[in-house]
Amino acid sequence: MRVSIIGLGLIGGSLGLALRSAGHEVAGYARKPRVAALAMERGAVDRTAKSLAAAVKKADVVIIATPVLAVKDILSAISNDVPTGAIVTDVSSTKAEVMKWAEECLPGSINFIGGHPMAGKEVAGIEAADAKLFRGCTYCLVPGAHASRKSQKMLEGLVKAIGAKPLYIDAAEHDKLVAGISHLPLLLSIALVADTTGSPLWPSMSRLASSGYRDTSRLASGDPHMSRDICLTNKEPITAAIDEYIKELKKLRRLVGNGDEGLEDYFIKAKEARDNWLRRK
Amino acid sequence: MRVSIIGLGLIGGSLGLALRSAGHEVAGYARKPRVAALAMERGAVDRTAKSLAAAVKKADVVIIATPVLAVKDILSAISNDVPTGAIVTDVSSTKAEVMKWAEECLPGSINFIGGHPMAGKEVAGIEAADAKLFRGCTYCLVPGAHASRKSQKMLEGLVKAIGAKPLYIDAAEHDKLVAGISHLPLLLSIALVADTTGSPLWPSMSRLASSGYRDTSRLASGDPHMSRDICLTNKEPITAAIDEYIKELKKLRRLVGNGDEGLEDYFIKAKEARDNWLRRK
Repeated sequence: MRVSIIGLGLIGGSLGLALRSAGHEVAGYARKPRVAALAMERGAVDRTAKSLAAAVKKADVVIIATPVLAVKDILSAISNDVPTGAIVTDVSSTKAEVMKWAEECLPGSINFIGGHPMAGKEVAGIEAADAKLFRGCTYCLVPGAHASRKSQKMLEGLVKAIGAKPLYIDAAEHDKLVAGISHLPLLLSIALVADTTGSPLWPSMSRLASSGYRDTSRLASGDPHMSRDICLTNKEPITAAIDEYIKELKKLRRLVGNGDEGLEDYFIKAKEARDNWLRRK
Repeated sequence: MRVSIIGLGLIGGSLGLALRSAGHEVAGYARKPRVAALAMERGAVDRTAKSLAAAVKKADVVIIATPVLAVKDILSAISNDVPTGAIVTDVSSTKAEVMKWAEECLPGSINFIGGHPMAGKEVAGIEAADAKLFRGCTYCLVPGAHASRKSQKMLEGLVKAIGAKPLYIDAAEHDKLVAGISHLPLLLSIALVADTTGSPLWPSMSRLASSGYRDTSRLASGDPHMSRDICLTNKEPITAAIDEYIKELKKLRRLVGNGDEGLEDYFIKAKEARDNWLRRK
């Protein structure tokens, strides 16, 4: 298939590498010529296009792999140039807003299917792209109102070709679920860094910080622009998730403050729950 | 030197491996015969002792590598058997209580120096022991009131021999610092698992949980008994750290709820702070 990828960062670049090694023809577009050149050099694309219009003109599938808020502008910019019957998809971390924008911007003759591969790294950019990034990961698919059965099967095929597991899901449900297991961990990690590095004790603390701190804070090194877009397009589910979390943390704080007998049980339960999850992964 | 290690879990076992490969003679004691046998098999000790008394009788250095609360009982159990002039140290994550117990339990003729290697894994037990665990890590040392200069130099030499960087620190300061960069991340991670796995949405969430969730929750798979002991011996610093954290998280929640312009700056600052820390590590 002829696939066009708009945005050649970590995810766009990794998709290019994975799709090309699965035998598909990949055209790429990046706003920055340097990024497009690097994608070419790394073998993530067969060719790069000079404009959005040129990138999508002959595509069977268009993948928009930019931070969420840029998706809207790109959808309206390409709406007249995408061939009739083609598939358009994205890779953003939130889906409800994106589905609305697609409905508003694209003609009914185009098959829009929202997408979200549950994979990533804290290192952004084409330099970190990796053909194996999607192996074994869940890949959420949210078919738009006009997406044909055939187009869904085709996109599903691409998802399987890169080693991922397609999962059809409703946009609002998706956003609620990722608020809990993706956006909440992201914000906990960022708040941990803001809290500790903002402390007057940080110069001394930082010498003692070790692998536990490193891993719990890993997500704070992610792309700030992408994180902002996630928050701006998933406000209610995220604030609700934070509120629930604060309740839980206060409960744990009480157990610690009281030197409660129940502490060990609480820890055992959490360990078992996580270990079970890992085993089933 | 003749080193005796009491407790042959991840840390005790790793110390044994590292000290033996640095040319020291290591005797080990574990409550469970199976663990002692495994330590022997893995080469973490030269010999195992049948009793605490036999383990410490001829030691130059005794290292207590058990969860914090067990340290007190061991200190009083061995106090009559440790040779005069020997060094006794521990590896626990909290120091103020341990220093008090050592003062209460040990005669002044023994050099007690509290210790805390800033290294670990979420996998407990001798099976996970690793001679390289301490390479490059900061190793906190808290000399007791009766610890001679010479004993401090000797222990410092052992710490350097396993590749770690000794750092002399006051017990109360240590406990405050680790509350922020070690115990707080641990409890955040545990609360994240308790919160998400306790949600009615967990069966669906768990399918979408990916590497971000895995890493942010990693510490929740640690030893529940050790975590409990940490909390019980460092209550005030930990609850204070949680309170500070909740303030920060509420601030971030407000920014998200308001779709605030300042969100991206907040994320950029956290990213820079973490990246700077990693660079300086």
